[in-house]
Amino acid sequence: MDSTEATPRRGRPGYDQSSMLEVIVQVFTDHGYDASSLGMISTRLGLSKSAVYHHFASKAEMLEIALERALGALEQVFDEAERGGNGAGAAGAAGAGSDAVGQIREIVRAAVLVACEQQPYLILLLRLHGNSDVELRALERRRALTARLRAIFERARNEGALRDDLDPGLAARFTFGLVNSLVEWYRPDGPETPEALAEAVLSYVRSGLRVNEVADFR
Amino acid sequence: MDSTEATPRRGRPGYDQSSMLEVIVQVFTDHGYDASSLGMISTRLGLSKSAVYHHFASKAEMLEIALERALGALEQVFDEAERGGNGAGAAGAAGAGSDAVGQIREIVRAAVLVACEQQPYLILLLRLHGNSDVELRALERRRALTARLRAIFERARNEGALRDDLDPGLAARFTFGLVNSLVEWYRPDGPETPEALAEAVLSYVRSGLRVNEVADFR
Repeated sequence: MDSTEATPRRGRPGYDQSSMLEVIVQVFTDHGYDASSLGMISTRLGLSKSAVYHHFASKAEMLEIALERALGALEQVFDEAERGGNGAGAAGAAGAGSDAVGQIREIVRAAVLVACEQQPYLILLLRLHGNSDVELRALERRRALTARLRAIFERARNEGALRDDLDPGLAARFTFGLVNSLVEWYRPDGPETPEALAEAVLSYVRSGLRVNEVADFR
Repeated sequence: MDSTEATPRRGRPGYDQSSMLEVIVQVFTDHGYDASSLGMISTRLGLSKSAVYHHFASKAEMLEIALERALGALEQVFDEAERGGNGAGAAGAAGAGSDAVGQIREIVRAAVLVACEQQPYLILLLRLHGNSDVELRALERRRALTARLRAIFERARNEGALRDDLDPGLAARFTFGLVNSLVEWYRPDGPETPEALAEAVLSYVRSGLRVNEVADFR
């Protein structure tokens, strides 16, 4: 993890693995993983290939570590919601996950935060082609998350807390699709904070676009 | 753009431009556009490179024609909704687009059908990296569609037909994000018809997950 190697090019700051990964993931996203070469990566980093190899054994390892950021964070979201607390101390946090709808709420809220905070890594995950073992394993973990969400939606429906005219599997896919799509346009310097976005998504997911209970035209 | 009537059969089934495009887009999707070579494409088609060149001047032209399928179809969706009819003869089609909410309904419904029918071309569009003029022009057209949707959401809010506690820009992005995400998992041989999916999406977008007005536990 040390940032060794006097960096060429106008005294740019030394890299640790994490800051290198940010740049590398940008290369993957700009050109696609398959088309990204170590030459491109070392050029973008302004480092020699051997300096890059000092931190990563291979392109596959870079991808694996990057995907772990997205998948690990999402799996943690589910683990915490299913344990019944989000640790964030927000309203009704303790035990929020005890019922299925509370878990859905926690998962949606936390997944929006992950989408904002781990945006580049999620973009990478969402655009995988599945041409290597690392990619296939990541896609398998992604499918497992979808299955977990679907199971929670099914429980919510069984608890009578979800409308019964919408298939829980579809509802889960729609919800994940919406949350995932944030990474396509979210800007850290944009007008909405991740927390405000999470609230807006939750509100949309809960009630749709329908005019508020009492129609008002102000 | 001439529709060659009788495609001459060679040893293997004859390709016309359209059926070649299907295979080519699969190569683009499997490897990313940047990493897809003419060699890969001709191998996958089982044709010589010169046979491929008979139909397409370049890789960029293949991409351009493929993206036109997605973008042209989506632009048509907006054009028809804004003209106030969907031409599909469904319930309430005539004049459905006269108010903004009617237009949103038409656009969501028709965009779901496009997502299903033009799935491979939409996947391509949604994963563009923007490294060439063709890609940049397509991304510009995609942005224009988002702006059109946002404008309609703003009108709907001004007409008092959209809840006023959700930013119309966010609502438009959420809605497009949800619809676009269908291409990630829709299967033409899956259990849902495109029409049924469109209804489910409309219902979700309109009312969210909330239990029906009168809670029932059957």
